[in-house]
Amino acid sequence: MEKKYVYSFDEGNKEMKNLLGGKGANLAEMTKIGLPVPFGFTISTEACNRYYAEGQQISDDVAQQISYNLKKLEEKTQKKFGDPENPLLVSVRSGAVISMPGMMDTILNLGLNDESVAGLADLTQNERFAYDSYRRFIQMFCDVVLHIPKHKFDAILEARKAEKGYESDVDMSSEDNQAIIEAYKRLVRQETLENFPQDPKTQLIMAVKAVFNSWNNPRANVYRQLNRIPSDLGTAVNVQSMVFGNMGNTSGTGVAFTRNPITGEKNLFGEFLINAQGEDVVAGIRTPQPISEMDKTLPEVFLEFKDIANLLENHYKDMQDIEFTIEKGKLFMLQTRNGKRTAKAAVKVAVDMVSENIISKETAVSRVEPSQIDQLLHPTFDSKELDNAEKIAQGLPASPGAASGKICFTAEDAVAAAKNGEKVILVRLETSPEDIEGMIASEGILTARGGMTSHAAVVARGMGKCCVSGCSDIRVDEHKKTVYIGSEEFKEGRYLSLDGNTGFVYSGRIQTKEPELSGDFSLLMSWADEIRNMKVRANADNPKDASIAVKFGAEGIGLCRTEHMFFEEERIPAVRKMIVADTVEERLKALDSLIDYQREDFKGIFKAMEDRPVTIRLLDPPLHEFLPHHDEEIQALSKQIGIEFYKLKTRVEELKEFNPMLGHRGCRLAVTYPEIYEMQTKAIILAAIEVKEEENLDIIPEIMIPLIGSGKELEYVRKIVNETAVQVLKECDTEISYKIGTMIEVPRAAVTADEIAEHADFFSFGTNDLTQMTYAFSRDDAGKFIREYKDKKVLESDPFQTLDKQGVGKLIEIAVELGRKTRNDIKLGICGEHGGDPDSIDFCQSVGLDYVSCSPYRVPIARIAAAQAAVIAKDQSK
Amino acid sequence: MEKKYVYSFDEGNKEMKNLLGGKGANLAEMTKIGLPVPFGFTISTEACNRYYAEGQQISDDVAQQISYNLKKLEEKTQKKFGDPENPLLVSVRSGAVISMPGMMDTILNLGLNDESVAGLADLTQNERFAYDSYRRFIQMFCDVVLHIPKHKFDAILEARKAEKGYESDVDMSSEDNQAIIEAYKRLVRQETLENFPQDPKTQLIMAVKAVFNSWNNPRANVYRQLNRIPSDLGTAVNVQSMVFGNMGNTSGTGVAFTRNPITGEKNLFGEFLINAQGEDVVAGIRTPQPISEMDKTLPEVFLEFKDIANLLENHYKDMQDIEFTIEKGKLFMLQTRNGKRTAKAAVKVAVDMVSENIISKETAVSRVEPSQIDQLLHPTFDSKELDNAEKIAQGLPASPGAASGKICFTAEDAVAAAKNGEKVILVRLETSPEDIEGMIASEGILTARGGMTSHAAVVARGMGKCCVSGCSDIRVDEHKKTVYIGSEEFKEGRYLSLDGNTGFVYSGRIQTKEPELSGDFSLLMSWADEIRNMKVRANADNPKDASIAVKFGAEGIGLCRTEHMFFEEERIPAVRKMIVADTVEERLKALDSLIDYQREDFKGIFKAMEDRPVTIRLLDPPLHEFLPHHDEEIQALSKQIGIEFYKLKTRVEELKEFNPMLGHRGCRLAVTYPEIYEMQTKAIILAAIEVKEEENLDIIPEIMIPLIGSGKELEYVRKIVNETAVQVLKECDTEISYKIGTMIEVPRAAVTADEIAEHADFFSFGTNDLTQMTYAFSRDDAGKFIREYKDKKVLESDPFQTLDKQGVGKLIEIAVELGRKTRNDIKLGICGEHGGDPDSIDFCQSVGLDYVSCSPYRVPIARIAAAQAAVIAKDQSK
Repeated sequence: MEKKYVYSFDEGNKEMKNLLGGKGANLAEMTKIGLPVPFGFTISTEACNRYYAEGQQISDDVAQQISYNLKKLEEKTQKKFGDPENPLLVSVRSGAVISMPGMMDTILNLGLNDESVAGLADLTQNERFAYDSYRRFIQMFCDVVLHIPKHKFDAILEARKAEKGYESDVDMSSEDNQAIIEAYKRLVRQETLENFPQDPKTQLIMAVKAVFNSWNNPRANVYRQLNRIPSDLGTAVNVQSMVFGNMGNTSGTGVAFTRNPITGEKNLFGEFLINAQGEDVVAGIRTPQPISEMDKTLPEVFLEFKDIANLLENHYKDMQDIEFTIEKGKLFMLQTRNGKRTAKAAVKVAVDMVSENIISKETAVSRVEPSQIDQLLHPTFDSKELDNAEKIAQGLPASPGAASGKICFTAEDAVAAAKNGEKVILVRLETSPEDIEGMIASEGILTARGGMTSHAAVVARGMGKCCVSGCSDIRVDEHKKTVYIGSEEFKEGRYLSLDGNTGFVYSGRIQTKEPELSGDFSLLMSWADEIRNMKVRANADNPKDASIAVKFGAEGIGLCRTEHMFFEEERIPAVRKMIVADTVEERLKALDSLIDYQREDFKGIFKAMEDRPVTIRLLDPPLHEFLPHHDEEIQALSKQIGIEFYKLKTRVEELKEFNPMLGHRGCRLAVTYPEIYEMQTKAIILAAIEVKEEENLDIIPEIMIPLIGSGKELEYVRKIVNETAVQVLKECDTEISYKIGTMIEVPRAAVTADEIAEHADFFSFGTNDLTQMTYAFSRDDAGKFIREYKDKKVLESDPFQTLDKQGVGKLIEIAVELGRKTRNDIKLGICGEHGGDPDSIDFCQSVGLDYVSCSPYRVPIARIAAAQAAVIAKDQSK
Repeated sequence: MEKKYVYSFDEGNKEMKNLLGGKGANLAEMTKIGLPVPFGFTISTEACNRYYAEGQQISDDVAQQISYNLKKLEEKTQKKFGDPENPLLVSVRSGAVISMPGMMDTILNLGLNDESVAGLADLTQNERFAYDSYRRFIQMFCDVVLHIPKHKFDAILEARKAEKGYESDVDMSSEDNQAIIEAYKRLVRQETLENFPQDPKTQLIMAVKAVFNSWNNPRANVYRQLNRIPSDLGTAVNVQSMVFGNMGNTSGTGVAFTRNPITGEKNLFGEFLINAQGEDVVAGIRTPQPISEMDKTLPEVFLEFKDIANLLENHYKDMQDIEFTIEKGKLFMLQTRNGKRTAKAAVKVAVDMVSENIISKETAVSRVEPSQIDQLLHPTFDSKELDNAEKIAQGLPASPGAASGKICFTAEDAVAAAKNGEKVILVRLETSPEDIEGMIASEGILTARGGMTSHAAVVARGMGKCCVSGCSDIRVDEHKKTVYIGSEEFKEGRYLSLDGNTGFVYSGRIQTKEPELSGDFSLLMSWADEIRNMKVRANADNPKDASIAVKFGAEGIGLCRTEHMFFEEERIPAVRKMIVADTVEERLKALDSLIDYQREDFKGIFKAMEDRPVTIRLLDPPLHEFLPHHDEEIQALSKQIGIEFYKLKTRVEELKEFNPMLGHRGCRLAVTYPEIYEMQTKAIILAAIEVKEEENLDIIPEIMIPLIGSGKELEYVRKIVNETAVQVLKECDTEISYKIGTMIEVPRAAVTADEIAEHADFFSFGTNDLTQMTYAFSRDDAGKFIREYKDKKVLESDPFQTLDKQGVGKLIEIAVELGRKTRNDIKLGICGEHGGDPDSIDFCQSVGLDYVSCSPYRVPIARIAAAQAAVIAKDQSK
């Protein structure tokens, strides 16, 4: 049998979204449940894909199916395409599976030509309307189908209006329109060397092709990328017979939401306009009235509409966004879809619908976009002010929130300015661990380089601080303390505003709004917690972050990095002494002066987390990160710690690496300088002992060894850690439990996880580094080309944002399988940035991890996402 | 049943090497085939491993089995341990599975004590000998078992000799020895607070423990590492009743090879000494006689010995290294083993044994250590001169051969010196592509940094040039043009000598010998070629290397890197212009001036290779490698190519990366700048067309795209390459075949090889980079800690030298399986440095690769190794 590419509205239903697009499926569904829908048909997404597969040609069988359905439509409406007496007019609309504003939207009144326009005039008893419609149809068709620049049509129209001295389009007579139509047609001949197509079927085929083509226009591509919509879905085309809302005072058109999409309140929310077509609402010729006013003008129709709106919401079990037209007192439904809503509304609608018994808690939890939750947790710009703000650059939306402040170019300047009560935006080429204090002092961070998991991005997210990274539109001159954005120069002290949700950079100052969390939010989160199987932990390196994490519902710490602790002002000299030490004795001496700091660090974190598990990662970065690199700084350090300049400089040189990411770091430090991990282990165990004594908390520290690549390596380092722990406990004559595990972040660790598991109590997938190694992408360098990769569709998404399931995920699957083979009860988690990404969390559920860990500010997102993943898993196992 | 740890010589055979060690298994074998072997027993390697497992204790059951076998030995010899009348004396020797000079060797005459020494005097009718033996036994036992410093014994001995005015030990009387023995025993009491053990059983157990301990002494550990011997094999201990070669003129001792171990000639080769114990030969008291002289002194014994030697060689089917003792005219065999031999001898013995019908061609090919072949292909130091040379440092044996020359510190200096007819050793902190000309001009290269696959190492091997890399014993000051080695300073112009086979650096000049290749060598190689299944290709970047590769038997080029071509003096300005270009047009213009060079490069290579396949890898390194980095150089370049300094400097800064290995390189360049690969593809196809026309050679270029990480990426880049090729062929109106494939060098590529294979005609495993990513080891940085990892037994071997089968190999296996699943006939090869490593070649055979590719100078090694791998595979499939 021939493959079916075209479906009339009575052949489909709402489950056929993939085939008919969202709009088409819903039109079919409304038809099916008996609602008044103008008849029509949908050309499927498969037809679109075939169109591309065949070199942008509509094949004969698709064309035949369109003709066949057109005939059916003519029969049903008792009208004929191009009929001068009783012409069939149609709207043509694109309709993708996932609604996409980048695509061609609508052509109205297709079917009009020099003859049928007369029929329309007769039919509507309104010649002016008919010619106005024809004129607009030509203009719209020429714009979206023939791609003739719109301004050329506007010029003709304006010329006529000027000639006649009209102020508005409404002043134009039917004759004016006819004259303009003739001028338009001449323009078409000039531009295309052909006449404006008079045959409605030709018009239709051309319009269908234009919709198909719009699937691949640049705007649509960008939109898909931003929203991670696959590029091979294709779009459907809906062809629907026209109804007219402009046939007098019993006609009209409108749009309504079944609930308030801003607040979520249960009230019909929308607008309508009497004696108008949809277009008029958009054109803004007259101001539409609130939907509730319809009660007064068309009370019966309003009652019918309210019933239908109610019915649709109950049918779809979600808030609906409905378009309708009233033709001479008769209501027609033109579209229904799940309504877009603010984060606040999303939460309220979901919670309300549970109490209204419309949906289950599982469904409620699944209704809220986890990324929307983020909006609720961070400051945002006042939307009115934003409209007037000057957008001057765009970078990566590296850490959510909004911030305004004066530009500073160094961490010291930022700290100083903040002390003076200034709000600061720290602008850097890129940040490094030495900038931490400056980042803390700033409202937001803007960097020219670095991707979504660059130092700036990771640290800012950890701090819940707004950050725009990898903004290649700016050129930073740190020495001159100035930044060039476009052709403008911004010196130190000038105001900039950053939107970390969009990556936009604005000139000047914009007011921000603080987030408020509602009771509905807490309720929804509690349902999420009931539903999910995976635990949610946070990445936190200090007691403050740990407290925030607990506040946001973290059930433990999945990653406590110890390197940030090393950078604090009073400690860094000792750290540096330790690094430049020539002998084990010198190194031990330097480490000795650090142990009390570390012990206090850990005590603070243990206390903040109470009885929740805390995973502490031992020192990870290459040692040269702790050393200064310029001669002046080395000179200063030389004086400070009393080691001669030359020796210090030699050591700095020695520690430099071509590829520090693949260098002497992580557990490799422990193989060469076991004293470091010994000191850290000692601090951890002592802290646990003391907190147990002081607070009676039963702390079970989880000591995590980074960058392990083989079983032997972990065996070696575990022995160092374990012997130290045993000795400390012996010396203190006490007992506490502790666990020793490792990160799986080196590809080799994944494929040899069976051997590694022999020495590990737990695995934590360090997916940042694992992604770096698996892809051979340096996250600090890849920003530049990853963007190009996405533009060229070589990458669907940034693998540092969304876990690459196929590659990195494959390694994780291998590691999970091998790890569990050796040790069935091994605890498995993830602590890379992906631990806070909903899509990646779904993957974590599917491979059976025990927990995810993410920045404190992403904990609520992760809780929701984990619940959604659990719902999906449950559905799939059915 | 109780596990057996001790085997008497009549219970074993030569197949039991793993259990009894090499020496023990061969003693058992000789016993089994009826040769005169003094009776004894072997304590197994399992006993050694158990000794370590139980905290260095000999467990009761092992001790009981030793006692039992001792009793058996007493019965067999009719002697008794410690018997003052007829004492049983034994030798105790270590015997590992693989012979290891680092371990304890031998204790003779164990069983002597204050009483049994009298028995020995009676038995030998030689009181002086008996006390001399006892004295020596105490001294040896105290040295190797009790670890009392040897010099303390020497002091006692020398004092006595001085007192008596003796010139040599021979002058000493029995009384002297007795007096010294008493002094020795006093010393033992002082040092150990115990008496010298008089109980022979105690002596034995202590000696056995000492042998076990010697398995883990530092020398043994180093030896195992150097020779890649696993550290968990353990050693066996052989306990054998003593025979005496010093019982008059019908007694004696000797060592002989069944063939000449230096030349391989078929002649008994060795030495013997009448009336002496083995020790005397070593002590050098008298000069031994050539073995052939035995014909005169002990003709009958000599005849018997010749028969036995012959029998042993035929029995073992290999040249034997035999130790024997004659006691009162009776011949005893003390050891036989396969004799160590020079590379030259190895080849001759293998070839001769085939013509003598002793072994098959397969066995002959398997007999030659592939690494020995290397010695035959490169210059070596004159061994006599080497003995007198001053060894001053040791680095990694990065590229074989030997070289002497004057130190130069820059590539320019090296080129200049070479032009003046000087022999040059280039000494650098590390080399970079800019040093190529200097490396070509030098005899050898010494670097302070970098591992076995650092730039210096890889390039030097490619050039067949001696290189010692990662020599951390030296401190290079390139600005002052001086290098500090130990406490000495070596200025420019001073002589250094490098041994690339050992990594040793010598002060001054040492004469080198050029290699000669024999007819036997060619014959053996031809057998290897018959036997192997895998093809052997070479990595060659220019016509000269290609010709060398063909000469060494390469069957194609597996990797032609194109980046080296970019560095030549006349091209680099155009390359740099291309890199700093702002627009596609500028870039195209710069590329246009390169295309003719590239085309000529490829033509030269195609012509050198004739009809052999040539795989050309498109540009791989990050672009900043081609740019200068210091302000002065940038200034110079700015003038040269007429681009302002600031702009140039900005571009240099922009291109800098934190981790260039994981940065913007390989096919990523083609995604952002497709023009580069287009130019290269054009040059390749044009070259093939022209060579076809000029030489009538049917060239099928294999175009290889580096650093691919996903199927989509290869699809994208393949399209660029393919469309270019199609267009060139169309423009030239001709047809040639070409293949487009990819390297598998990114872990992600391995795990998604099924998708990648959809777009690849071939895969070539780039195991250098794959090892870097899989381990997260930067090969330029890892040298430092890899050595420490090996010392601490965390790594068995350097994964850049020997393919890591477990990790990297696992990824290769996955890729082979997935790749073949998609495309059954996909051609699979390896072009990393491992392609020339025998052990890795064996792995390549086992996973079913079609070819290996390595430096031209390693092609013969790879041919032999591939043949050996084929023999092993065939044996295993039986």
